[in-house]
Amino acid sequence: MGETETIFKEFKEHSVAEFFKKNKQMLGFSGKTRSLTTIVHELVTNSLDACEEAKIAPEISVEVKEIDKERYIVKTIDNGPGIPEKHLGKALGMMLAGTKFHRYCQQRGQQGIGASGVTMYSQITTGKPIKAVSGYDGTVIRAEISVDFKSNSPRINNLTKEPGEFRGLSYECEVSDAKYDKSSYGVYEYLKRTAIANPHSQITLLEPDGTRVVFPRSVNEIPPKPQSVQPHPMGISTNDLMEFAQHDKESRKLGSFLQNNFARVSAAKVEELAQVAKEVDFNKAPKDLQWNDAEAIIKAIKLVKWIAPATDSVKPIGEAQITKSLTNMLSPEHLAVVERSPKIYSGGIPFVVEAAVAYGGQAGRKYADKTGGDIMRFANRAPLLFDSSGCGITEAIRAVDWKRYNIRNFDEEPITVLVNISSVHIPYTGAGKQAISDDQEVYDEVKNAVMEAARNVQRYIAGLTRDADRKARRKAILRYVTQLSKDLVDLANEGKAPEIEKELIKLIEEKYSAQIEDDDSGDEEVAHANENRKDEGGEEGEE
Amino acid sequence: MGETETIFKEFKEHSVAEFFKKNKQMLGFSGKTRSLTTIVHELVTNSLDACEEAKIAPEISVEVKEIDKERYIVKTIDNGPGIPEKHLGKALGMMLAGTKFHRYCQQRGQQGIGASGVTMYSQITTGKPIKAVSGYDGTVIRAEISVDFKSNSPRINNLTKEPGEFRGLSYECEVSDAKYDKSSYGVYEYLKRTAIANPHSQITLLEPDGTRVVFPRSVNEIPPKPQSVQPHPMGISTNDLMEFAQHDKESRKLGSFLQNNFARVSAAKVEELAQVAKEVDFNKAPKDLQWNDAEAIIKAIKLVKWIAPATDSVKPIGEAQITKSLTNMLSPEHLAVVERSPKIYSGGIPFVVEAAVAYGGQAGRKYADKTGGDIMRFANRAPLLFDSSGCGITEAIRAVDWKRYNIRNFDEEPITVLVNISSVHIPYTGAGKQAISDDQEVYDEVKNAVMEAARNVQRYIAGLTRDADRKARRKAILRYVTQLSKDLVDLANEGKAPEIEKELIKLIEEKYSAQIEDDDSGDEEVAHANENRKDEGGEEGEE
Repeated sequence: MGETETIFKEFKEHSVAEFFKKNKQMLGFSGKTRSLTTIVHELVTNSLDACEEAKIAPEISVEVKEIDKERYIVKTIDNGPGIPEKHLGKALGMMLAGTKFHRYCQQRGQQGIGASGVTMYSQITTGKPIKAVSGYDGTVIRAEISVDFKSNSPRINNLTKEPGEFRGLSYECEVSDAKYDKSSYGVYEYLKRTAIANPHSQITLLEPDGTRVVFPRSVNEIPPKPQSVQPHPMGISTNDLMEFAQHDKESRKLGSFLQNNFARVSAAKVEELAQVAKEVDFNKAPKDLQWNDAEAIIKAIKLVKWIAPATDSVKPIGEAQITKSLTNMLSPEHLAVVERSPKIYSGGIPFVVEAAVAYGGQAGRKYADKTGGDIMRFANRAPLLFDSSGCGITEAIRAVDWKRYNIRNFDEEPITVLVNISSVHIPYTGAGKQAISDDQEVYDEVKNAVMEAARNVQRYIAGLTRDADRKARRKAILRYVTQLSKDLVDLANEGKAPEIEKELIKLIEEKYSAQIEDDDSGDEEVAHANENRKDEGGEEGEE
Repeated sequence: MGETETIFKEFKEHSVAEFFKKNKQMLGFSGKTRSLTTIVHELVTNSLDACEEAKIAPEISVEVKEIDKERYIVKTIDNGPGIPEKHLGKALGMMLAGTKFHRYCQQRGQQGIGASGVTMYSQITTGKPIKAVSGYDGTVIRAEISVDFKSNSPRINNLTKEPGEFRGLSYECEVSDAKYDKSSYGVYEYLKRTAIANPHSQITLLEPDGTRVVFPRSVNEIPPKPQSVQPHPMGISTNDLMEFAQHDKESRKLGSFLQNNFARVSAAKVEELAQVAKEVDFNKAPKDLQWNDAEAIIKAIKLVKWIAPATDSVKPIGEAQITKSLTNMLSPEHLAVVERSPKIYSGGIPFVVEAAVAYGGQAGRKYADKTGGDIMRFANRAPLLFDSSGCGITEAIRAVDWKRYNIRNFDEEPITVLVNISSVHIPYTGAGKQAISDDQEVYDEVKNAVMEAARNVQRYIAGLTRDADRKARRKAILRYVTQLSKDLVDLANEGKAPEIEKELIKLIEEKYSAQIEDDDSGDEEVAHANENRKDEGGEEGEE
């Protein structure tokens, strides 16, 4: 054996399950509190996705039972469609298997890792398989499931199958190295935020101390079933085009292949593309597409005018629902909610940003005796609690020049900023799905949405400040009225102090109530507002 | 087909290569500049690891050639051991294959993804395979390699094999969607920092504009070959114990299994464990180890006293080498380098933190006409350029109360902070390996190391401030000396102004030069230093 071969004698291959077992922090399993929240997050998002897919108003119960120090049983039950026997093992005990990975569809889950990751965590912390009950189409299946790490395949034990009425999925796991607490990173906060963004859901939490918390359904409308959409030509790469061509076994010519697989491609558009990419034979079979052809087509796509992608596939929470949720929860003095029109990133992926700014009342984050600015991030209605500092949403909110909006210091004001991004493809930074990348188009849109809401709040705070100033001035003047009246009598050597005082007070009251109407056109205010408008125009010009 | 089965008809399995292709941002392929830096990072870290493994002083050349807009050929050549034919395809064209994943060994790479990720990026941006030349043991192999995404397996084409003198690996790829720039996130900066942390390497960069940059070897000593170490009992989980037991085909009894697989386990220690975990039969075969047994053993491990793990497996850069590198690069006015003693995290994983604080000279980051604090992060000598805000190192540096160290505002001072963490297992937050998690033990140690270096710098700055104050006072007094002398003559009506002035100047000079020795015992200074010491004791008490 040569020297180099000796070095390489330890060369081995590994399964993706082994990879994530070794790097479980990448799936959100780092820290005891976070690990427990990650478990609930993965199970609840799967339940919500499944219910919406089946057009069912979600009813989800979550039970967390402490059975030993840092050891818990976590059980979730939903009223979704259940999982068929054929797929149950893989759905819960195999990484990278599921219905979502390959579809262009707006769902919370995207990768087919989540639930299997929870199964993995149970195994590596307590050695126990998870217990699943799946009810669907009149059948109830029970099974114990674990992951075979070496092969990344499910191990199914004690499977039973019987007729039954239960419909939905029950998932029970026993985990250690976990901690239930009520911090802003805990399960309670996670479910509270889930309820805010999913007012069509009924969520019940049974806490370890026996407390039952119900986040009731506040909206009866079920969100429309998420639709798979065809990708828009502007959003695809040469490589995507090659892969679509290899998978399309039905279209006979390149031209019809383009029309069948991508949005907004008509026969006329194919003709236009052919005019630009003259070297490509649009009559050849898709399977014969070469990289050079594909590259020429992608170049041509960038030069041709397109109708923007349909944005009805993107389902935001909705202004009315956000308003209802935040009003219920925070009773803010003032609330501004903004739903922006759909935008496109990477040329072809539609997304919608919603932002809300709540001020006063219960808004803001409480520390000991202080209140500071709070940020609530959501992606496709799923709360993002962790990795805040590395998230494009946080960066965009922090980049807002809050002083302009009369928020002197974001970290010391009773203010809550909510942002939800909806899209068929959320650009998460990691498999733990807790932060989104700071893609310029998404970042700019979040910043603009927050600034739009902040402007509304600014007007409210400006009013508050004026009122407060006026009251302070009035109070200061009134404080001297009695003495002044006496001094006037002494100086003039005539009149009676009480009468003079009464007159003076009348004057002051007139002056300060008149100002209430006048003030809004005050020079200073207008100049200030203009200045803002100008600067922001510059900033928004980047759109 | 039932309703639920209809929903699940799109259930599919995916390969890890498909996963990373869809989520390429997780490997660091997001943004054009970052993508190019990621390519160089993965190839260069592999080269450095390979050279060290083979005890070769690394000579690495990197060539970046622009062949079209945002399209480049990147070629690296090293003088390492090469890769044997048998492993070449998998090493460069298969995710999760390599020599590093399963070893407890301090290397830059850990996961067997890096180079295959670069191959993937070439394919999806230009459709081209990469060209590899591997020379080893007198043989030279040339091949074109790409990844088959569906199966995560390598595709090898045009392989040739002939005798030859070349030893090492040459890797050439053509990529698009990339950008070469000289920003602090670019290839140039990456290699500069690599050179700082690897002064035993000779690195040459040929830039797209034809400029050749050489980062010369400044230290002739080759770092010792990284050693695989046995894990320490305090660092393993129940699950780890189960897996080791299943893999050990040689040990016949649990007792000898523990001694053979883990560090610091003697026959006497096994006896101690048996005293605590009375329910476990230490004579049973490792393959018969049950979860309950393993759990009892892990509990017993926590109750028994252990010698700390050997720390000689951890190889820091070294104080002398950091001093040399930073002095060469920054010519700072003052430099403090701290190499802490090895510490342990998660109970059994040794790590070493090195920190340096450079002040003045070329230290700090330049913006337009300003200079601000700069942070250089390294893990096992590999520079971390991205995801700074989400990195535990950054958080720890930011958490230092810099004012205490006479750094008024970190972001406005000519200061560079370098931190290198060395360990057999770096807790990265993502597969892109650009940030480490804020694990409490690592975080505290980084903070303590930086504070230790900062205290040294503080003394220097305090000296600067005192000198400056004294000079200002002296100057102010001297300004009035001439006038005062005249006034004294006028007042006293005798003497000559020039003579009095000369005497006064003499007095002042004596006073202010005497103070230079005296000042260090000045009351105010001492009080201040005590205060610092007290507060820091509190902070360091968390260790």
